[in-house]
Amino acid sequence: MSDELTGYLSRCRDSVFLHIRGYLEKRTAALPSSMRKCVVDYPYRRGKALRPALIMLFNGAYGGRRAESVKVAATYQLLEDWGIGRDDILDGGTLRRGRPSLHILYGMPRAVNALDMLHDCVCDMLYSYCGLSPRRYKALHSLFSEATSVTLGGQHLDIGARDISLERFTGRAYMRIAEMKTAFYTVTAPCLLGAEISGKKRGAAAIREFGRALGTAFQIIDDVLDAENDGSGLFGKAPGNDILEGKRTLLVAAAFRRLAGAKKRRMAKFYSMPSMKRSPQMVAEIRRDILASGAPGECRAKAEELTAAALRIFELRLYPAMKGPCRDMIRDLALKLRDRSF
Amino acid sequence: MSDELTGYLSRCRDSVFLHIRGYLEKRTAALPSSMRKCVVDYPYRRGKALRPALIMLFNGAYGGRRAESVKVAATYQLLEDWGIGRDDILDGGTLRRGRPSLHILYGMPRAVNALDMLHDCVCDMLYSYCGLSPRRYKALHSLFSEATSVTLGGQHLDIGARDISLERFTGRAYMRIAEMKTAFYTVTAPCLLGAEISGKKRGAAAIREFGRALGTAFQIIDDVLDAENDGSGLFGKAPGNDILEGKRTLLVAAAFRRLAGAKKRRMAKFYSMPSMKRSPQMVAEIRRDILASGAPGECRAKAEELTAAALRIFELRLYPAMKGPCRDMIRDLALKLRDRSF
Repeated sequence: MSDELTGYLSRCRDSVFLHIRGYLEKRTAALPSSMRKCVVDYPYRRGKALRPALIMLFNGAYGGRRAESVKVAATYQLLEDWGIGRDDILDGGTLRRGRPSLHILYGMPRAVNALDMLHDCVCDMLYSYCGLSPRRYKALHSLFSEATSVTLGGQHLDIGARDISLERFTGRAYMRIAEMKTAFYTVTAPCLLGAEISGKKRGAAAIREFGRALGTAFQIIDDVLDAENDGSGLFGKAPGNDILEGKRTLLVAAAFRRLAGAKKRRMAKFYSMPSMKRSPQMVAEIRRDILASGAPGECRAKAEELTAAALRIFELRLYPAMKGPCRDMIRDLALKLRDRSF
Repeated sequence: MSDELTGYLSRCRDSVFLHIRGYLEKRTAALPSSMRKCVVDYPYRRGKALRPALIMLFNGAYGGRRAESVKVAATYQLLEDWGIGRDDILDGGTLRRGRPSLHILYGMPRAVNALDMLHDCVCDMLYSYCGLSPRRYKALHSLFSEATSVTLGGQHLDIGARDISLERFTGRAYMRIAEMKTAFYTVTAPCLLGAEISGKKRGAAAIREFGRALGTAFQIIDDVLDAENDGSGLFGKAPGNDILEGKRTLLVAAAFRRLAGAKKRRMAKFYSMPSMKRSPQMVAEIRRDILASGAPGECRAKAEELTAAALRIFELRLYPAMKGPCRDMIRDLALKLRDRSF
């Protein structure tokens, strides 16, 4: 990664967390102290702040000033902190950012309650902390709302997909889910927000195509990393969780297509049983079969293809209207996203 | 109940639901259709719209026009619809407004997901549907935020109270929880919202005292009704649920104080075991002991005392600055709240 991008990401992350802390300290001051601890827990673990960086880079590349984007970027990071909390609850994730999940630490009822509070903080922070003009607030509120609707719509489909047999679950169904539950809020919405803050009025259609391709690649790789994670690396999540939960991913669809005979039957059976009945040994077997099937390579190739498509859109339809160092850092960041090397 | 109040409440309820439907049809249009059904389920069951009525009555009594309050009242009802959904998830309630709860109908993951969507709708509806001026929006946003923080703070304490032994759980602890988790959002916030919409700038301190007393009375009676509910009436909730969940209520504190010997020991033991271990037979026994202990009468007397205090504040500090028929309907409504006869 270029030194310039590394430094930029690091400064962006620091600023975002200063703002999050500034907002949360005040907003949570009147809460019972044991609740406050639970509300700020995920935000203070500090994510990588990828989405805030995209907001700030797009704002910068379109000529906006940094100060105008950083508070919105921090609010968007809070949306992400809420989102991963609810993901952990919905998927039974036990480890997050290398530490036990919220519901493991505080119990499910307190975790659900604190996350609802965090959700409310997102809405309030955008309005009361970001200092936006009424016109700007209108546009940004609308993008935040769209990001939430699209993402939760995707989550709903993702939940429903777990009832679909592997014979009937297709790569196309996966792509729709990944676009909705991940690509929009991870890439599309941040880029649109950055453009909006800068005052840039054109290019939204190209941004949406760019975001869909790059964001879907991101989710495909995320699913592969989840399967490859053996708990020894820095992934920060519990190993094998997607498999245990029976998530329908491109990796799963590809592995199922590639397997045959007893392994294929075992996989179909595993994915049709209730998650309660899946033993750690079964999870380990299925994981081994998936990793040995050639599906991870196929998924990585698909992610590369999508990233290449995103970069073509970027070069041809977005880059020419941009200026300064931010536009080159966006290209670098897209490549690093594909490799998940930042 | 006076015919005037009956007619007012009925018209208010109808208008509120027309607006909720108008907003939700549009906002949920792009969601997957199976998700949409789940999001609108509770709102379309139509609650009693008590809180919207308080908003509209306070606005009217302070000289505000009806049209200016009805959309905010509808938004507040949506906040309530979200609130009861999360209550049902946190408390394991299986019946709501006479029908199976959301998570019973759609499964827990879809229900949690749909409720998060509904929460987002509250934030969006206040901004994008109510047509408020920037100044008015600022004040109302702040009251909605306060209502959410205070209520969730109270829920957190309520969850924590279930770990407290009955020997140590006091009526004072209950009152703090009831004030936070119920009184503020049920009475105080609606009255403050109505006053704010009317443009009334004074009287907030008296409204807060009025709301605390009346709203706490409301929760005390709610707890008694939950214990008395045998499933035969129109309460709309599953019988014995508070007892099964081990909720610490004023009723429970009073019953425990009044019981002695084996019954007291049985009650202490029941409330210290995990809810999973509580059999239907145990719940029935504890319910019988509570109802026979004299505690329901004691709680009703406490609720009457609080309602009387609320009415004194109303007569002396709020009524004189009000005008028109709304002010008398507020008094009637307070009495009906105490009796839960509307």
